[in-house]
Amino acid sequence: MNRPRRSVQTREALIEAGIEHLSVHGYHGTGIKQILDEVNVPKGSFYNFFASKEAFVAELIGHYSEDLLGQLNEFMTGPGKDLTPVEQLRAIYLYSLERYASNGFKKSCLVGSMASEISSESEMCRIELEASMKKWLKFFSEVFAKGQKQGLFREDMSANEIAALYWAAWEGALIKMKMSANTQPVKRIMELMISTLLKK
Amino acid sequence: MNRPRRSVQTREALIEAGIEHLSVHGYHGTGIKQILDEVNVPKGSFYNFFASKEAFVAELIGHYSEDLLGQLNEFMTGPGKDLTPVEQLRAIYLYSLERYASNGFKKSCLVGSMASEISSESEMCRIELEASMKKWLKFFSEVFAKGQKQGLFREDMSANEIAALYWAAWEGALIKMKMSANTQPVKRIMELMISTLLKK
Repeated sequence: MNRPRRSVQTREALIEAGIEHLSVHGYHGTGIKQILDEVNVPKGSFYNFFASKEAFVAELIGHYSEDLLGQLNEFMTGPGKDLTPVEQLRAIYLYSLERYASNGFKKSCLVGSMASEISSESEMCRIELEASMKKWLKFFSEVFAKGQKQGLFREDMSANEIAALYWAAWEGALIKMKMSANTQPVKRIMELMISTLLKK
Repeated sequence: MNRPRRSVQTREALIEAGIEHLSVHGYHGTGIKQILDEVNVPKGSFYNFFASKEAFVAELIGHYSEDLLGQLNEFMTGPGKDLTPVEQLRAIYLYSLERYASNGFKKSCLVGSMASEISSESEMCRIELEASMKKWLKFFSEVFAKGQKQGLFREDMSANEIAALYWAAWEGALIKMKMSANTQPVKRIMELMISTLLKK
């Protein structure tokens, strides 16, 4: 019974290492060989696990996205449970920024950076990226809908529309974070964004 | 007198081809050799023009940014002269989207995509990207300040703050454009963004 378990573990280790490398070096800057070396897998074995680099990356995107969504949901039912929707949004963006700052801005949102780099080259990855983004939008849309019900957010836009705008500002603000190697501009942008969405 | 002129022309041709390649394939996906082949320059000559790939790309970023800023200023003193600031913003984003759509979303904002891909790896490029972004922010800030004076935009935020938020939403919306291979989501996001910035 050792073999299949080891195989599953190796697959997971490849995915974890792949996410790390892609987050820092991007699609074209990541070589499969580096990842295999790190996980101690012989070169020929890669194709036992994944059909191609493209299929590997598409799977990584899905994995990264599900993991993040899992963390968001854990936060909402755990430490964030008693916060207002505005406080929840703030806690989520501050937590993300802390993580990005802690590794010297080397990593950012993998979905945003992959979308920018390869969605026009790989239809397989583009579809996975779009699916990830839609799941996150659904998550944020629910937060905004709850906030609207509580009279916190403006009601001249739907919760879906607000979520789409909020998500765009977040991804754009992360670009500014990378340019300025600083989280302050993102915080400023996200607070401005939130304040334009509040009910006056 | 032929030599220096040819040299300047070659340099410009390398820059133009570099911008094209980088816009489509990104930093790591662009090989210097492809660019040299395209411009018909022998491999060894590259270093007569640029100290390194990194220095080349940093110069491309500056060139791209100045070119875009020149186009924006031409628009503001030419066809956009008699439009309101809101109409000017709309015309600018619609024009950009048309261009991106016309090449099948293969290209997007070079500054945004380079920032996402290499600002943590190359300090030289990061500095150039940040400088470009600051110039654009100054441009947009002036449009918003004019709009505020005309009573069009909200005044509880400074024109600089509005410009920072608007720019972030634009860069984030472009990521969504690449994911969805469609300009509709960007238009929706930009119209939502503008409407939250209008004076009520």
